[in-house]
Amino acid sequence: MRSHLTEKIVVNRIVKKITWAQLAEACARSEVWTTSALLGQQAMGPSEAAAAGLLLDLTEEEVALLQLPPSKGALGGAVPTDPLIYRFHEVVEVYGTTLKELIHEKFGDGIMSAIDFEMAVDKLPDPKGDRVKVTMHGKFLAYRKW
Amino acid sequence: MRSHLTEKIVVNRIVKKITWAQLAEACARSEVWTTSALLGQQAMGPSEAAAAGLLLDLTEEEVALLQLPPSKGALGGAVPTDPLIYRFHEVVEVYGTTLKELIHEKFGDGIMSAIDFEMAVDKLPDPKGDRVKVTMHGKFLAYRKW
Amino acid sequence: MRSHLTEKIVVNRIVKKITWAQLAEACARSEVWTTSALLGQQAMGPSEAAAAGLLLDLTEEEVALLQLPPSKGALGGAVPTDPLIYRFHEVVEVYGTTLKELIHEKFGDGIMSAIDFEMAVDKLPDPKGDRVKVTMHGKFLAYRKW
Amino acid sequence: MRSHLTEKIVVNRIVKKITWAQLAEACARSEVWTTSALLGQQAMGPSEAAAAGLLLDLTEEEVALLQLPPSKGALGGAVPTDPLIYRFHEVVEVYGTTLKELIHEKFGDGIMSAIDFEMAVDKLPDPKGDRVKVTMHGKFLAYRKW
Amino acid sequence: MRSHLTEKIVVNRIVKKITWAQLAEACARSEVWTTSALLGQQAMGPSEAAAAGLLLDLTEEEVALLQLPPSKGALGGAVPTDPLIYRFHEVVEVYGTTLKELIHEKFGDGIMSAIDFEMAVDKLPDPKGDRVKVTMHGKFLAYRKW
Amino acid sequence: MRSHLTEKIVVNRIVKKITWAQLAEACARSEVWTTSALLGQQAMGPSEAAAAGLLLDLTEEEVALLQLPPSKGALGGAVPTDPLIYRFHEVVEVYGTTLKELIHEKFGDGIMSAIDFEMAVDKLPDPKGDRVKVTMHGKFLAYRKW
Amino acid sequence: MRSHLTEKIVVNRIVKKITWAQLAEACARSEVWTTSALLGQQAMGPSEAAAAGLLLDLTEEEVALLQLPPSKGALGGAVPTDPLIYRFHEVVEVYGTTLKELIHEKFGDGIMSAIDFEMAVDKLPDPKGDRVKVTMHGKFLAYRKW
Amino acid sequence: MRSHLTEKIVVNRIVKKITWAQLAEACARSEVWTTSALLGQQAMGPSEAAAAGLLLDLTEEEVALLQLPPSKGALGGAVPTDPLIYRFHEVVEVYGTTLKELIHEKFGDGIMSAIDFEMAVDKLPDPKGDRVKVTMHGKFLAYRKW
Amino acid sequence: MRSHLTEKIVVNRIVKKITWAQLAEACARSEVWTTSALLGQQAMGPSEAAAAGLLLDLTEEEVALLQLPPSKGALGGAVPTDPLIYRFHEVVEVYGTTLKELIHEKFGDGIMSAIDFEMAVDKLPDPKGDRVKVTMHGKFLAYRKW
Amino acid sequence: MRSHLTEKIVVNRIVKKITWAQLAEACARSEVWTTSALLGQQAMGPSEAAAAGLLLDLTEEEVALLQLPPSKGALGGAVPTDPLIYRFHEVVEVYGTTLKELIHEKFGDGIMSAIDFEMAVDKLPDPKGDRVKVTMHGKFLAYRKW
Repeated sequence: MRSHLTEKIVVNRIVKKITWAQLAEACARSEVWTTSALLGQQAMGPSEAAAAGLLLDLTEEEVALLQLPPSKGALGGAVPTDPLIYRFHEVVEVYGTTLKELIHEKFGDGIMSAIDFEMAVDKLPDPKGDRVKVTMHGKFLAYRKW
Repeated sequence: MRSHLTEKIVVNRIVKKITWAQLAEACARSEVWTTSALLGQQAMGPSEAAAAGLLLDLTEEEVALLQLPPSKGALGGAVPTDPLIYRFHEVVEVYGTTLKELIHEKFGDGIMSAIDFEMAVDKLPDPKGDRVKVTMHGKFLAYRKW
Repeated sequence: MRSHLTEKIVVNRIVKKITWAQLAEACARSEVWTTSALLGQQAMGPSEAAAAGLLLDLTEEEVALLQLPPSKGALGGAVPTDPLIYRFHEVVEVYGTTLKELIHEKFGDGIMSAIDFEMAVDKLPDPKGDRVKVTMHGKFLAYRKW
Repeated sequence: MRSHLTEKIVVNRIVKKITWAQLAEACARSEVWTTSALLGQQAMGPSEAAAAGLLLDLTEEEVALLQLPPSKGALGGAVPTDPLIYRFHEVVEVYGTTLKELIHEKFGDGIMSAIDFEMAVDKLPDPKGDRVKVTMHGKFLAYRKW
Repeated sequence: MRSHLTEKIVVNRIVKKITWAQLAEACARSEVWTTSALLGQQAMGPSEAAAAGLLLDLTEEEVALLQLPPSKGALGGAVPTDPLIYRFHEVVEVYGTTLKELIHEKFGDGIMSAIDFEMAVDKLPDPKGDRVKVTMHGKFLAYRKW
Repeated sequence: MRSHLTEKIVVNRIVKKITWAQLAEACARSEVWTTSALLGQQAMGPSEAAAAGLLLDLTEEEVALLQLPPSKGALGGAVPTDPLIYRFHEVVEVYGTTLKELIHEKFGDGIMSAIDFEMAVDKLPDPKGDRVKVTMHGKFLAYRKW
Repeated sequence: MRSHLTEKIVVNRIVKKITWAQLAEACARSEVWTTSALLGQQAMGPSEAAAAGLLLDLTEEEVALLQLPPSKGALGGAVPTDPLIYRFHEVVEVYGTTLKELIHEKFGDGIMSAIDFEMAVDKLPDPKGDRVKVTMHGKFLAYRKW
Repeated sequence: MRSHLTEKIVVNRIVKKITWAQLAEACARSEVWTTSALLGQQAMGPSEAAAAGLLLDLTEEEVALLQLPPSKGALGGAVPTDPLIYRFHEVVEVYGTTLKELIHEKFGDGIMSAIDFEMAVDKLPDPKGDRVKVTMHGKFLAYRKW
Repeated sequence: MRSHLTEKIVVNRIVKKITWAQLAEACARSEVWTTSALLGQQAMGPSEAAAAGLLLDLTEEEVALLQLPPSKGALGGAVPTDPLIYRFHEVVEVYGTTLKELIHEKFGDGIMSAIDFEMAVDKLPDPKGDRVKVTMHGKFLAYRKW
Repeated sequence: MRSHLTEKIVVNRIVKKITWAQLAEACARSEVWTTSALLGQQAMGPSEAAAAGLLLDLTEEEVALLQLPPSKGALGGAVPTDPLIYRFHEVVEVYGTTLKELIHEKFGDGIMSAIDFEMAVDKLPDPKGDRVKVTMHGKFLAYRKW
C-alpha cells in the first residue's frame, strides 16, 4: 500500500513537473532527506507531509501514511542492477574493508550509524568533466562492553 | 596468491605496530587509497610498492605483485555480515533510489564513476558524540547516444 | 509503470508490423541505441521520443516518460534463461578473465566504460553459415590515484 | 588440478615478465584465444601447448594437461565482483534484450554460437581518451524444427 | 503477454479435450516440437500457428504472437520442484560430468547444440513395467580456434 | 575422501592414456555407467572395481571405496557453468514442461525413474556435421494412491 | 489457474466447516492422499474429484481440473519459513545422512521412492504430552547397472 | 574439527568392516540415534562414546569430543543433490502443506518437535519389491498464548 | 487471502487511530502476542478474534479466518532489509554462536523452544538515551535419546 | 587467521575443561560478552585478553590479536542450519514485524542499536520444565532529519 503511494508520487511529480529540489524547499528539509522520505524510506512530520501532499495532490489518507515509519530498503537485499546504484554497491565491494580498517584505526571498535546519519549530493564543477560529490556523516557508536 | 599476500600484510602490520596512516605517508598517497591498495583492491606504482614493502617486510616478488591490477571486490557479491560494512550496504538499500533521483536531477542520465573516484574518511568532533565523515567524489559520466 | 510502457511498445510494434530498423531511422539513431531506449534502458531526447511515439501510437504522457532516466537492468541480476541471451552470459563466464588480462596489458589498471559506450549488431555473410557480428567500444577509464 | 596449473601459469608469466602477446605469437594464435586457453578455458593443440610450456617453464605432464578439454566457466555463475568484468555483465543486463530483438529481426529465431566464435580486443585511439574495442562474431544457429 | 497466451492454450486444450498428439498432427510437426512451441518455447511458422489457432480457438493476434521468437526458459534458472521435471535435472547432476567426458572422448572439445537439436518421447513396453524413452540428438559444435 | 579418489582417477587415466571405452570394456559394463561410477556417481561391484583398480593403479582401500554408495550429485545444485553441461541444463529449461505434458499424456500421472535408468551416448554421422545422440530410458513410476 | 482452485478449496472448506477427514471419507481415500490431492499435489480419479467437488461446491470445469497431473511442489525449492513445515526440513538436515547410511546398509545402493509412496499422520497419546506420529513407506529402487 | 572426526569415523568404519547396526548395539541405542550421533548430529553420553571409540579406534580426545553438543545440520540449508536424500526433501515439498493441515486439524496450532523426537528405518518385505519404512514421532508443542 | 486480511488490519488500524496497546487490552492478551496474531503469525481464540474484529471493522468471515493457524514467517527466509528488523538478524549473526555455547553450558544439548515461548518489548528510561528492552523465554527442550 | 585462533580457543577450552563462566569471571566481564569476544565477535581490552590467554594457553601474538576489532558475523548471511541457532532466526521471522510495530509505537521511527547493546542468558526454573530466558537491551536511535 505504501508502494502504491510511492508510485503515485513518482508519477505525479513527473506530470506536474516538480523537482525534488522544490519539494525539499516546500518541506523545509534537505534534498536527500525529502527525496528519501517521499520514496518511502523515512517518516515525515505533519507539516512536511502536508506540504508535500499539497504539491503532489495527495489525499488526506495518503498524507497520514507519509507520517508512519515505513518498511525500509528499496533493493531487496540483492545486488542492484541499475548501473548508477550499482556503482555505490561497487564502492562497498572495493572499499568496504578499507572503511573498516580506517574507522577502527581512528575510532576503535564500533560502527558509523546509518540512523543518526546525514547525506548530501552536490555537483563539483571540473574542467575535465563535472564530478558527483557525496558527503555523509553518521555518529560513531562504540561497541558496549558489559 | 594475492589473497595470501593480503593476509601477510594484515598480520605484519599488526605485529610491527604500523598504522595505516604511517603506510600512507610512506607511500605519499592518501589513507584510503593506500589502505585499499594494500588490501588488494588497487595496483600500486613502483615507488609506492617499494615503500610499503620496506615497512611491511615483503619480498621482492611480493613488491612486484603489488603492482599488478588485482581481481577486485572483497565481499563476494553477497550481503556483508560485518556490522560496520553492513551499515554502508544499508545506506545503499535505503538511499540508493534517492541518489539515483538526485544525480539524474542535477546531471541528467548517467552515473558517478567508481573508477575516476576519490574517497576520504575523517573524524568530525561533536559534543554529542564524534561523527564519522565519509566524502567521495567521482566523475559524472553521461550515457552516450549514437 | 515504465514496464507497462515497455510491454505496450512491444505489442504495438508487432501489431503495426514496424521493424526496429524503421524505428531507429525515424529517431535518427542507431538500431542498438533506439531498441534499448524503447525497451526501457535509455532516456530519449524530446524529438526521438516524439518520433517513436508517433509510430507506436503512444500518449503524450508516455512520450514524456520515454525521456526520463529509467531504472535499468532487464535480467534481474540472475543467470538469464533465454538461450540467446545466455550465450552472451557464457561469453563473460568463459572469456571474462581473458578480457581482464588483455585490457590490463594494453591499457593498465582500469575498465572499459559501459556508459560512454557504443554497440552494433551486424550480419556477416559466410558460405558455411551467416555469422552474427557484435562490435562494442567504450572509453577506457584508468583508476584514479590520490 | 587444472586450477593449480592456471595459477602456476599466472605466477610464472609475471616472474618471467612475458606478455600475453608474446605467448600468443609463440603459439601462432590470436591473443584472445591464447590467453583464454592458458587461463583454462580452451584445449590447446600439441604444438601450441609445447610452445607455451617452453616459455612458461611447464612440466611435460602440465603440457599434456593443456591439451585436454577443461571444465570451463571462471566466474561460478554468480554476478562478478571485479569492476572490469562486471562492466561486461552490465552490458548483458542493459543490452541483452536489445541483442535478442535485433538478432531475431536480422536472422530469425536462433542464437549466436559462443562455440563457433571469435573475439578480439583492440585499442581505439581517441583524443578524448582511448577506447577499448571488443569485436566478436559467432555462427548464427537457427532453431531446428522437426 | 506470451505467458497469458500459454495459459490460455493450456486451459482451452483441456476444455476442448484435445491431445498434444492431435495438435502435432494438425501442425504436421513432431509432438515434442509442437508441444514446446505451444508452451512458449519455439517460434511457429504461419501455417503451423494457423492450424493450432483453429483447434485452440485463438484470436488472429494470438496466432501472430505464436510466430514470434519467445523469451525462452520455463524454470527460471532455479532447481525445479516438480518431481517429473526434477528427475531430468537429477540426470544432469548425476551424469553431467559423464556426458562431458564421453562427448569429449568421441568428438574432441566442443558441445552438443541445444538449438540444432531434436528430441522424442516414446513408450517402451516392458513386462516389469513400461519405460519412458527419451532420445535427443544435436549437432556437435567444435570450439573454434583462431 | 571420495573426491580425492575421483581426482586421482582423472589424473591417472590421462597419464596412462587409457580411454573411458577401455575402462568400460575391462569392467564389462557400458561406457556411460562405467564413467559415471568412476567419477563417483555409482557403486561398483567387486569385479568391476578390481578391473578398474588394476588399470588405474588404485590401492586396495581405494578399490573398496569404489564399492560404496557415494554421495551423488556433481554440480552442487546450482546452474552449471561449463558450456557442454549447461546445454543439457538448457534442454531441461526449454523442454522440461514439454516432457511433463507428453509423459503425462502417454503414461498418466507419475515420473520417469532416474534410478532404474539407462543412458547411452553415440556419434551420429551427418554430412552437415556429425551429431551427438543421447538415448535414455527409465521405468515409468505411477503415483500411488491409498 | 490450479493455484486459484487450491485457494478456493481452502476457503470453501473453512466457510462450510468441512474437515479434511470428512473429505477423505467422501473420496474413500486416506486423509494424507486426499488432502495433498486437494492442495494441488496429486491427480484425482473421476469419482474422487466428483465427491470432493460436491462437498466443496466446485464447478464442473474445476472438477475436471482436479483430474489433471498438477505441477507439484508447494515450497518453491527454498527453505520453508512456516515453523511446522520447517521442522520436517530440519529432520532432513539433521537425519538426512543417517537415512542415507541406514538405507544403504539395509538395502544396498538405491533410494526410497517418493512416488510409489504412502504416508500417514496419527496422534500418539502420551501422558507427558501427545505425540505426532508420521509413518511413510516407499518402494526401494536399486540403481540399475548396464 | 568435528568434521575431521566425522570423516575419520566414516573411513575407519569401512576399513574395519563394522556395520551401523553393530555400533548401535555396542552403544545400547537405536540405529538411527547412534548413526546420527556418529555422523556429528547428536551429543553422546560417556559410556556410548567410549563404546563407539573402542570399536572405531578413536583417541581419548576424540571420545571427549563425541560428548559435546555439535553444530548440527549436514546439508547446509540448500537443496540436497544426493538422490536418496533429495527424495525426503521432495516429500516435504509435495506433502509439507498436507502435514501442516492434518496436524492442525488433529492437534490445533503448534508443531511436531524435531528435538523431543524419535525415528526408525525398517525393511518392509513386499512381493512387488521391498519397501523402505520410516517412522517418526515427536512431541506436539502447542503455541503458547500470553 | 490471509495476507489481504493482514493488509486490511494494518490500514484500518491507521485510519481508526487505534494503538496496538488498545488492541491488546481489548483482547486481554499481551501486546506482543496480540500484534503478532493480527499480523498473521498466531491463531486467535474466538473471543480474541471477536474483540479485534469489532475494533477493526472486520467481517464475520475475517473474524473466522483469524482463528485458523496461519502460514507463518513474514520475512521469506532471506536477510531482512528493514533496518529495525535487520538489527535483530545481526544479533543472531554476532551472538548466535554465543547463545549456543551458553545454553549448552547451562542446560546441556537441546534448544530453547520458539513455540512454548513468550516475548515482551519495554521502554527502559536512561538519561543517556532511552533503551529498548526485549525479554524472551522459551521452554528448554532436551534432545531425546532412544 | 582469526578463525584459526577461534578454533584453538574452542579446542583448548574443552581439553582444559574450563567453562565459559570461569572465563567470564577471569575477565571480569559478563558471560555473554566474554563468550562472544572469545568466539571472535568483539575486541577485548588488554587485561581481558591477558586473563583469557593465561587460562587458554595462548601465545603473546594471539593475545594481541584478541584486542583487534574482528570481522564479525558467524553465520555467513544465510539461514542457520543448527537447530538451536535457527530458533532465534525463527523468532525474527515470526515476530520481526511485531517488534517493528511495537518499537515504533513506543519510541517513534528509529531502531534498537545492536552496538550499544547488552544481552544475558539465564535459567528460569519451572516445574513444567526449565525455561531459557534471554534479555537484551539496546539504545533507541531515532532517525535523524536534516
